[in-house]
Amino acid sequence: MSPTITLDPSRIERDLMSLARHGAYGETGVWRTVYSPEWVAAQDQIAEWAAEAGLAVWRDAVGSVWGRLAGTGAGKSIVTGSHIDSQAPGGRYDGALGVVAALTAVRTLHEQFGQPRRTLEIVSLCEEESSRFPSASFWGSRAITGVIEDGETESVIAYSGESIGQAMRDVGLDPARISDARRDDIEHFIELHVEQGPILEGLDIPVGIVNAITGLRHYVVELTGRSDHAGARPMDTRRDPMEAASHIIAGAVGYARALGRPAVTTVGRMLVEPNLPAAVPDRVTFTIDSRSPIPEQHVDLQRHHEDLIRRVAAERDIDVDWRITADHQPCISDPDLVTLLERSAASQCIRALTMHSGAGHDTQRMALECKVAMIFVRSIGGRSHTPAEYSTIEDISEGIRLLTATLHELAYSRA
Amino acid sequence: MSPTITLDPSRIERDLMSLARHGAYGETGVWRTVYSPEWVAAQDQIAEWAAEAGLAVWRDAVGSVWGRLAGTGAGKSIVTGSHIDSQAPGGRYDGALGVVAALTAVRTLHEQFGQPRRTLEIVSLCEEESSRFPSASFWGSRAITGVIEDGETESVIAYSGESIGQAMRDVGLDPARISDARRDDIEHFIELHVEQGPILEGLDIPVGIVNAITGLRHYVVELTGRSDHAGARPMDTRRDPMEAASHIIAGAVGYARALGRPAVTTVGRMLVEPNLPAAVPDRVTFTIDSRSPIPEQHVDLQRHHEDLIRRVAAERDIDVDWRITADHQPCISDPDLVTLLERSAASQCIRALTMHSGAGHDTQRMALECKVAMIFVRSIGGRSHTPAEYSTIEDISEGIRLLTATLHELAYSRA
Repeated sequence: MSPTITLDPSRIERDLMSLARHGAYGETGVWRTVYSPEWVAAQDQIAEWAAEAGLAVWRDAVGSVWGRLAGTGAGKSIVTGSHIDSQAPGGRYDGALGVVAALTAVRTLHEQFGQPRRTLEIVSLCEEESSRFPSASFWGSRAITGVIEDGETESVIAYSGESIGQAMRDVGLDPARISDARRDDIEHFIELHVEQGPILEGLDIPVGIVNAITGLRHYVVELTGRSDHAGARPMDTRRDPMEAASHIIAGAVGYARALGRPAVTTVGRMLVEPNLPAAVPDRVTFTIDSRSPIPEQHVDLQRHHEDLIRRVAAERDIDVDWRITADHQPCISDPDLVTLLERSAASQCIRALTMHSGAGHDTQRMALECKVAMIFVRSIGGRSHTPAEYSTIEDISEGIRLLTATLHELAYSRA
Repeated sequence: MSPTITLDPSRIERDLMSLARHGAYGETGVWRTVYSPEWVAAQDQIAEWAAEAGLAVWRDAVGSVWGRLAGTGAGKSIVTGSHIDSQAPGGRYDGALGVVAALTAVRTLHEQFGQPRRTLEIVSLCEEESSRFPSASFWGSRAITGVIEDGETESVIAYSGESIGQAMRDVGLDPARISDARRDDIEHFIELHVEQGPILEGLDIPVGIVNAITGLRHYVVELTGRSDHAGARPMDTRRDPMEAASHIIAGAVGYARALGRPAVTTVGRMLVEPNLPAAVPDRVTFTIDSRSPIPEQHVDLQRHHEDLIRRVAAERDIDVDWRITADHQPCISDPDLVTLLERSAASQCIRALTMHSGAGHDTQRMALECKVAMIFVRSIGGRSHTPAEYSTIEDISEGIRLLTATLHELAYSRA
């Protein structure tokens, strides 16, 4: 097994805080959307650090920053990294921690063990959060895996109206060259990320090993009835979309609750028209977010929710329409990589829980092309997508130690 | 009984359309808020018509227009009228029809039967709809019954920020003189109004006789839980105010539905924070509008809804807060007046249904001081509070014939 890895927590903390100055928002927040000046400055910072660590640095066709430590032997690359674009606003850790972790791990290995047998690479990806371009999530990892379609550079539009192609040109990237970002020479991708949930905190464990990323389906459900005076229209002749929505929400959320972990269903957004206290609504539009990392359960949740929507609408004479706005299958981590992570944690005396990810990550896109797994670092209070997100430097160091030891095993110890 | 009353439908229609020009909105709408230039012009029109009909015209301290046809005998006045302020936007009939009806009835009686024994008055009231000043509903009838409190002229604020006292001064009214509008010499008040619901249309009956105005309670319910990532937070540790709201809405609306007519409960307005598809909400705020014209049932609905809110919130660890933003007891019409209306309908061969009003009206305020009842005219499609509201001139004429015959009985036939 790998030698015991030791890191400098103060250096990690300094790098995190330094990176967070680009797009700093309030006391602890970051507002750093892809291709913005602050995002460009942060990518420049990553490139500078990677070069200082002795890596060969380049940017790919969509602006992701890469750093390579060439191996002495042949074989595909072992890659680690995450994204530095943030929610608007987000915190200092979501994404950025995985990039600092990648730099720290590869730098440490290079300093302490010299040139690896297998090529090691770090990557700082772009537009994971969809916080500037709502339909562009996983832009960087989709470019690497070659699944961006012709025309998307003009059809993917920012909240503020410009196309992603225009935003690329504005920072000196050529949208016509996106296919150049395609890679087919990556064997492993390991992403370190904050957990964004309360599981590790609840069990008092600093680090998670992700054996699956949840499947996810987003629905937008539109129920149309008929607005009427709240006093003058008897109940028995109403077509009330709010009453119908309440039955669908109670039923869908209640079903996931009854199934228990890991199934989750959330209704987080609702719009009511005309939204008046003394009028039955004309229309109620709401989202359903349904997730499970277990493929059969993921399908079961969808079947239940869709049957429920149809049944409630039919029973109550409500017109129903729904769209699926996001649809991801569960992503199962490479079992050998999970086992290696578990063994590395044991050998480094790192307490780690094997668990699933309830959030989506670039890793699920990279899984189209290579073997993947993730490392989670405990989130205080389970907070996520807020300037209040926080992880301790002690937990962060444990997570990066696990990453470093695992990369050592893959790149130095194995043939 | 009264002689058969005949009216000129074309004159009624002409007057309605003429009044609707003040504040005309789109093809068929009216946008005429109290104390606006178009409202002043409409009141001037009413005053002019009343004077032409031989009535003594004056404006009271809040700007309601009165017209009096003095009786030969002693006794308190018999009053009919409604309001000419509209929703924003509303239709041509809600309120305005009752004022045109009052003018038509008293003019017809004066022309055909001369001076009455008992004094007859018409009134065109102000700010019934709360469409300019949300907390000023029934402003005209509250002034007449003396229940406007000191300080309300400054504390009642328009959507656009000005006080109702300032708005009064802007049209030449002195807020300090509001108490001058008080009347204690009214015996009967009869208001003709569009039904605003589908009951008469459903039974194919042109006219309603209102034996009660519904009780009404408005709640604003605020449920506070904890926002969490829709994927990373397991169901069993959530504090989801949307799920709690769905159970309260399904339960409250379902209870009124199970009770059957005349109980109604409506949730017409909801606000969700932060209202994101992939986040459990922090807070869900919604209204409950609960109504019954039966006093015991009205209280039963309130008790059920409040118990339900408390129980659901407690079971699900949700913080709950609610405010009551409107609270009106059921208003029972004067039984003798209802009987007289029923007898008048029979003698005039007018098909009429005795029914309750599901909406609130100035009549319920006037009931504090005098004997009241209302006449309803069928609403096509039950439409209300929209430029699309409509009643046929045939139904309108039947309603005004009933009003005229009843006023004849009260003011001419009785001692």
